[in-house]
Amino acid sequence: MRPFISFLTDFGPDVAAAVCRGVILGICPEATILDLSHAVRKFAVADGAWRLAFALPYLPVGIHVAVVDPGVGTERRPLGLLVGRGDVLIGPDNGLLVPAAEALGGIVEARALTNRALCRDEISSTFHARDIFAPVAAHLATGVAFETVGPTIPLVELVRLPAPRSIVVAGGLESEIVFVDGFGNAYLAATPDDLEAAVGPLSPGRRLRLRFGGSEGIGRSRQPASLELTWQRTFGEVPPGVPLLYRSSAGQLALSENQGSIVDRLGLAVGLPVRIEPVEDAAEPPPRRR
Amino acid sequence: MRPFISFLTDFGPDVAAAVCRGVILGICPEATILDLSHAVRKFAVADGAWRLAFALPYLPVGIHVAVVDPGVGTERRPLGLLVGRGDVLIGPDNGLLVPAAEALGGIVEARALTNRALCRDEISSTFHARDIFAPVAAHLATGVAFETVGPTIPLVELVRLPAPRSIVVAGGLESEIVFVDGFGNAYLAATPDDLEAAVGPLSPGRRLRLRFGGSEGIGRSRQPASLELTWQRTFGEVPPGVPLLYRSSAGQLALSENQGSIVDRLGLAVGLPVRIEPVEDAAEPPPRRR
Amino acid sequence: MRPFISFLTDFGPDVAAAVCRGVILGICPEATILDLSHAVRKFAVADGAWRLAFALPYLPVGIHVAVVDPGVGTERRPLGLLVGRGDVLIGPDNGLLVPAAEALGGIVEARALTNRALCRDEISSTFHARDIFAPVAAHLATGVAFETVGPTIPLVELVRLPAPRSIVVAGGLESEIVFVDGFGNAYLAATPDDLEAAVGPLSPGRRLRLRFGGSEGIGRSRQPASLELTWQRTFGEVPPGVPLLYRSSAGQLALSENQGSIVDRLGLAVGLPVRIEPVEDAAEPPPRRR
Repeated sequence: MRPFISFLTDFGPDVAAAVCRGVILGICPEATILDLSHAVRKFAVADGAWRLAFALPYLPVGIHVAVVDPGVGTERRPLGLLVGRGDVLIGPDNGLLVPAAEALGGIVEARALTNRALCRDEISSTFHARDIFAPVAAHLATGVAFETVGPTIPLVELVRLPAPRSIVVAGGLESEIVFVDGFGNAYLAATPDDLEAAVGPLSPGRRLRLRFGGSEGIGRSRQPASLELTWQRTFGEVPPGVPLLYRSSAGQLALSENQGSIVDRLGLAVGLPVRIEPVEDAAEPPPRRR
Repeated sequence: MRPFISFLTDFGPDVAAAVCRGVILGICPEATILDLSHAVRKFAVADGAWRLAFALPYLPVGIHVAVVDPGVGTERRPLGLLVGRGDVLIGPDNGLLVPAAEALGGIVEARALTNRALCRDEISSTFHARDIFAPVAAHLATGVAFETVGPTIPLVELVRLPAPRSIVVAGGLESEIVFVDGFGNAYLAATPDDLEAAVGPLSPGRRLRLRFGGSEGIGRSRQPASLELTWQRTFGEVPPGVPLLYRSSAGQLALSENQGSIVDRLGLAVGLPVRIEPVEDAAEPPPRRR
Repeated sequence: MRPFISFLTDFGPDVAAAVCRGVILGICPEATILDLSHAVRKFAVADGAWRLAFALPYLPVGIHVAVVDPGVGTERRPLGLLVGRGDVLIGPDNGLLVPAAEALGGIVEARALTNRALCRDEISSTFHARDIFAPVAAHLATGVAFETVGPTIPLVELVRLPAPRSIVVAGGLESEIVFVDGFGNAYLAATPDDLEAAVGPLSPGRRLRLRFGGSEGIGRSRQPASLELTWQRTFGEVPPGVPLLYRSSAGQLALSENQGSIVDRLGLAVGLPVRIEPVEDAAEPPPRRR
C-alpha cells in the first residue's frame, strides 16, 4: 500500500504548500498526499487544531503534517506525536497537534524533531514546513522508524491550548464557538448530550434561546445578542434563512441557518461565549426570517 | 489502471472536501482523485450542473461525485447515474447530475443509493457527501457492480433543472447566461450555430449588439443594458478592456473583455437574459474602452 | 518511478485547471500531478514567473506546465524549454518560463510546440492549456522525446521579462518588490549579499530605513513612504505587528511584520521600487507598533 500523508496549513493558495509537497515527493515519490486544507485563518493555532481534530478521524492511518506556526524559527520545538490509532502527527509544539492526537486514541509518545539527517541540508529560519516538517514526514513515509526523529519529550512539557468552555449552569448550558466553516455554520465545544443534561430531551422543533458574548452584543453592527431557534435534524427542516441548532456531522452542537450564513449575519467568531436556555412559553411563535 | 474519481462541491477550501477524499482513500487506496472544483457558488445547483457538464467530457471515464445539496438529509434521494460513455455519476437527485449525464452520452440507468452496506456505518443528517456519496463512489472504484447501489429509478422521476433559454426571434437571438468563470467571462446557453441561424454568418470583426435583462438595466449601478461589440476568434484580437463575443472553448457563445472582467464591469450574473442583434450601420465605430 | 508533472496557472479555483489535469490523466494515467498554484494574479506574467523560479528548485525533476497567458490564440508561440537540471518547462513564450529555467541550470534547448499529433484533435483559440500545453506535457510524461514537440527556437528570440532592479548606490541599495505572498510578506530582487555590499555587515537588530516608490508615497492611503525596521533572523524576534527585514527562505531580501501583513498595511505591490539605507543614530529607538 502507498504511504499516506495529510497536510494542513494556514499558507493559503499560493505556492508554499506545493513546495512542501514537492519536497515530500522528492524523498518519497510513491506517497499519496491529501491536502486537508490550506485555508486555516493565518496564525490561528486553535482554528487549525480543531479542524485537525474533526477531520483526521475520517482519514486513513498515516502521517499528518500540520503547520500553523507563528513562532517558526524561535525556541518552540518541532514535534512528532505517535498516537493510539497508529498515526504520527508532525508540526510545531504550540498546541496545534494535541486535540487531534486525543481524537486518534491519545498520545503514545512525543519526540522533538532534532535529527538533522531527516531534514533538508539547509534549514531556513522562516520555512520549517519545507525544511523540517515535510522532509521528516516523507522519511517516515519511506519506513524510517519514529524513534529516529529525535529524543522523547515528557508529555507534561507539551504546549496545550486552553480547553474550550462547556458547563451546565442553572437554567442552561454555557459553551463557546470553537469552529466556523465556509458555509457560515458555527460549531460549539459542547455536545447534544451536554445540552440534554442542562435542558432535558431534545426533539425536532424544540425551542431554545441562545445568548451570545455577554451583555454588550456582538458583531460589527452590535446586533441583538440573543436568538431564538429550534432544535432540528437537518437544514431543510426549516425555511431558507431560518436558524436552527443541530447535532453536527462530527457530533457536537452546531448553529446554522438554512441556505445562509448565520456567522456572517450575526457576526459570530471563534471564541465567542454562547449560553443556551430552554424557551418554555409555547404560545410565542418561533422566529421567521425578517 | 488505477480507478479514477472526480469530485465537485460547493464546500470551499475548508476541510470538508478533504474529509470525503480521506473516506474514499480509506476504502480504495489506489484511486486517483481529481478535485474538479470546490468553489461552486454555495447552494447553486445549476452553477454546479453546468460546470460538471462542461468539464466532464474532458476527463477520463470514471466515477464522478458532485455535491451541491441544499436539501441534504431531507426526502431528496441520493442518486447514481450510469451514462452512455461508461461513467457513473454520484450525487443528490436535485438536477445537479443531469446535464453532465447528457453530455456523456445520456443516462443509461438511474439508481437510488439505498444500500447501507456501501455507506459509512453512521449516516449523519447533514454530511451525505462524507457518509453516502464518497463511500459509494469508493466502493464502485474497487469494482463493486453499479447494480448493487440500490433500486432503479424511472428516468421520468428524476428531478431536472429548467432548460436554459436559446430562441431565434425576429431580428436576433434570445438566450441567457448559464455560467460565469473566474476571469469574468460569461457563457450563454446558445451556440454560434444558433446565432448564425438568427443573424447570418459570423466572421471576425462582425459587429453585434447585446441587450441584457430587459428594459430596466442590470447590475448594482444600473448600467446601460446594451453593449456593442465584435465577433472575434480570441481575446487578444481586441485591445485590453474591449469586449468581444466568441466561441468558447466548450463550444457555446461567450462574452468577455480582453484582460478584464466583463462580468464585474457590467454586473452580469447567471440567469440573466441576453438578446443578440446584428448592427448593420457600418458608419458607426465599434466601441473602445472609456 | 511515476512521471512527475507540476502545474501553475492564473485560473483560480474553478474547473479550468482540473479539466487540464483530466486531459493529462487521460493520456498518462500514472502521472503524479502537483498543483503548484492556480492563484497567480490574473494576466500577471511576472508574478507567475517569479513564483515558478522560487518554487521549482524544491520540486522533483519533471515536466512543469505554467500558464499565465493573456496572448492565448494570438501569434505568441507555445514553448518548451529543456533545462540544465533535466526538467522540461511548458507554457507560452511570453517570459513566464525563463526565470525558472535559469534557476534550474539554464536553458539547454528551446522548441516551439507545433507537433499537432501531441495536441488535442481540436485546438480552441482561447484554452491552449487544455488543448496544447497539458497534452504535450502528458505525452512527454509517457516518454515521448522532447525533440518531437517541434522545431528549435534560437535562444535570442525568446521573449524575456525586464530584469528587476538591484543596484548598490551611494548610501544604500536600490531594488524592487518582485513577489508578495499570501501572508503579506514582500520579497525583493536583491539578496542579503547585495545589501551587505551596500551598507556593511548585517547582524540581528541592525537598524535600517526603507524608502518606497520615490517621493510621492505609496498605497491608497498615501502612507509615509519610509519605514524604519531591524534586520532579524525570523518573525518571532520582534513583537507582533513590528516590521523586520530578513533573508527569505528562498535566499533574497524579504520584508515582513510579525503576525501581520505589511503588504496590506503599507499598500505595497509588485514592481514598487525600494531603497534601503543604514540608520546610524543609535540614540533613536527602533519603531514599535502604533
